[in-house]
Amino acid sequence: ALEEGDDVLREVLRDYHASEIAILFEKLPSEAHERIINILPTDIASEVISEMHEESHPGELLINLDPEKRSEIVSELEYDDATDIIAQLDEEEQENILESMDEEDASSIRALLSYAEHTAGGLMNSSLIKVNISQDKKGALDDIIRQSEEMEEFYTIYVVNGDDVLQGVVSIKDIIKAHADVKVQDLLKPDPVYVKADVDQEEVARLISQYNLTTIPVVDDEMKLLGRITVDDIIDVMEEESTEDILKISGVSEDEELSGSWQDAVKSRLPWLVINLGTAYLAASVIRHFDSTVKQLPLLAAYMTIIAGMGGNSATQALAVTVRRISLSDLTDRQAYSTVFKEFLVGLINGSVNGLVVLCVALFYDANPMLGLVLFLAMTGNLMIAGITGATIPLVLKRVGIDPAVASSIIITTFTDCAGFLLPLWLASKFLL
Amino acid sequence: ALEEGDDVLREVLRDYHASEIAILFEKLPSEAHERIINILPTDIASEVISEMHEESHPGELLINLDPEKRSEIVSELEYDDATDIIAQLDEEEQENILESMDEEDASSIRALLSYAEHTAGGLMNSSLIKVNISQDKKGALDDIIRQSEEMEEFYTIYVVNGDDVLQGVVSIKDIIKAHADVKVQDLLKPDPVYVKADVDQEEVARLISQYNLTTIPVVDDEMKLLGRITVDDIIDVMEEESTEDILKISGVSEDEELSGSWQDAVKSRLPWLVINLGTAYLAASVIRHFDSTVKQLPLLAAYMTIIAGMGGNSATQALAVTVRRISLSDLTDRQAYSTVFKEFLVGLINGSVNGLVVLCVALFYDANPMLGLVLFLAMTGNLMIAGITGATIPLVLKRVGIDPAVASSIIITTFTDCAGFLLPLWLASKFLL
Repeated sequence: ALEEGDDVLREVLRDYHASEIAILFEKLPSEAHERIINILPTDIASEVISEMHEESHPGELLINLDPEKRSEIVSELEYDDATDIIAQLDEEEQENILESMDEEDASSIRALLSYAEHTAGGLMNSSLIKVNISQDKKGALDDIIRQSEEMEEFYTIYVVNGDDVLQGVVSIKDIIKAHADVKVQDLLKPDPVYVKADVDQEEVARLISQYNLTTIPVVDDEMKLLGRITVDDIIDVMEEESTEDILKISGVSEDEELSGSWQDAVKSRLPWLVINLGTAYLAASVIRHFDSTVKQLPLLAAYMTIIAGMGGNSATQALAVTVRRISLSDLTDRQAYSTVFKEFLVGLINGSVNGLVVLCVALFYDANPMLGLVLFLAMTGNLMIAGITGATIPLVLKRVGIDPAVASSIIITTFTDCAGFLLPLWLASKFLL
Repeated sequence: ALEEGDDVLREVLRDYHASEIAILFEKLPSEAHERIINILPTDIASEVISEMHEESHPGELLINLDPEKRSEIVSELEYDDATDIIAQLDEEEQENILESMDEEDASSIRALLSYAEHTAGGLMNSSLIKVNISQDKKGALDDIIRQSEEMEEFYTIYVVNGDDVLQGVVSIKDIIKAHADVKVQDLLKPDPVYVKADVDQEEVARLISQYNLTTIPVVDDEMKLLGRITVDDIIDVMEEESTEDILKISGVSEDEELSGSWQDAVKSRLPWLVINLGTAYLAASVIRHFDSTVKQLPLLAAYMTIIAGMGGNSATQALAVTVRRISLSDLTDRQAYSTVFKEFLVGLINGSVNGLVVLCVALFYDANPMLGLVLFLAMTGNLMIAGITGATIPLVLKRVGIDPAVASSIIITTFTDCAGFLLPLWLASKFLL
């Protein structure tokens, strides 16, 4: 019966693209992954595994397969994909897999494993198309066809000299159109954009995006060509980096897996909440300092939460705009100053508009004009502080080399909470009691 | 003297890539843009303009140029880039530019202008490489070379029939390797991934990312080939969408320009703050309901802000993880339920840990064990509510077809504020007074 079920499954899966099966995996328990991989043809199985999201743990799936099936699948993988998957395993498991592979493949993957995960070296694929600068048309074309045999997509053709030093690129169109006696040298487009292997992946994404590249070559310190990074890998990097930005700004550790377990989530978020608890006591100490004020006018307790809360939200707005702006481009000093000034102005205006609303409520509902004035001033003041801190703190963090997204709302709202409690209570103690 | 200054400037700019000049523009006043464009050679000038960020307003720059220079620059632009820039201008200005162009270019751009900005049609470029399915090797190769003449990058070759209906793709490698009598038909790779012109750009990005494509064809309802979208345009879309997510989740309108004026920022953020003010009054009304409780035990005013604040931050954490997860993939019902359950559990645990800390403080600092118990229960309860709402609200919004990121922290924190005030005050009024 199981056999029969497998036949049906095989038939159904025939109509799916490998990446669709990989997405299907996210919705299935891991036992099902193994069963499906085992009935798929090797080339499709290896494509599925390379398309699996890191959070679905393709490495563990691989380890659980029958060793022979596993070797077949791994040798079908592109080097960079194989490296990413193997890198997730512990050392013993890595050795297990590498030893079962043929020597050339294993040594290519070992070389890639030596680069840090989030660098150009960690992202690159060592299989690429390159031709020697001294080749003629026929030789170059033969080389290109031979090298492209194993590649799905047709990317840039790199030109190197005898020492494998990157000289530039050449276009397939120019080679095809060229006369037989033309050399690669004559068709060369020099000065390509390149990266060193230890460059951070975020910088690689920035270069690919800025120069609209489909692929970027990776070189060592002597400019020898090590590999290339293609734009589809960069799309994954960009998704990762955006996820990190959104998580960090919301006070979640950047490495929490979105579909991770509750244990991981607690580990990732509890430290931030404990820090927040400390800062909340700081803000609350402001209130305790004005115990007698609150006792005399308990409705201040209600109003101060409004002012603190509005400050927190304004600060989050300013923070989000500033952090995102910094992460997309560097700011000059003049731009940094004008950003802070803009946020100050926005805080002033939004503060006075909302302050007027609060003033009117105090006037007509509480029939207390002086209270209204106190609240108006407190609201305006707190939203100005919100704007200034929301813009300044990420800018300063960036200057001193700390990721500006760490200035999460948790940090920023400490300021607006303290000021949001202090301003109305202090003003009230001065003018109302 | 001005002439001489221009010569120096021209010399300096010679070493810059067009995209570098475009980035430089972001740091220079707009008068300088015009001067620089005027001294650059037309091909570089048009590349700079196509690389300019929308926020630097390339359209306005174009309008201010001398009409002849402008025509030259526009006719050098790729159709999709020209369309994006012209679309930013008002109708009269659009006509001005289109009428000065040659008829073929103008009609191609007019066609592209008819598609909505954030759809596949609005993104696509109508210039592409296509061959007829009945061509032989020689004819196909000639066609490809001719069409690729005006393109910088060498992308996918599409195969169409006599009615321009998309049949599939063919690889340049296979054509080069083929015998002279082989037809395109024999080399065809059928069933390419494609999009209709009215598909949203976010879906296009998802397809390109899922299938690791460098380019995707755009077709009409009869499957006729209209154009193609390249991955570099998708990178811009992804940056845009991530920016929107980060802004919306922080209570900023999605269309606020990151480097926009303070007027725009006020317009984009004030409505959210006014909504927040309304919800803040709702939460504050809870406090006013317990006026006498606060009067009898003013330190509750301090503690309730801690509990509400911690709830707000926990909810923001749950929200960020859930929104980001939804935006990267669709969840099955089972996954949705287990997400809510996970967040409930995380809230329960983080709530009791932080609750214990607050309990200890109340025990040793305030020497009030009953207060400690009340605060422990309130903290645990509020962080559970935070987890449940932070996960449920975006999931429900997604199901009913509303962008889940609209469940910004402003909306979510209303729940945690209300519960954060209600729980300690109500429990205190029951057990403490």
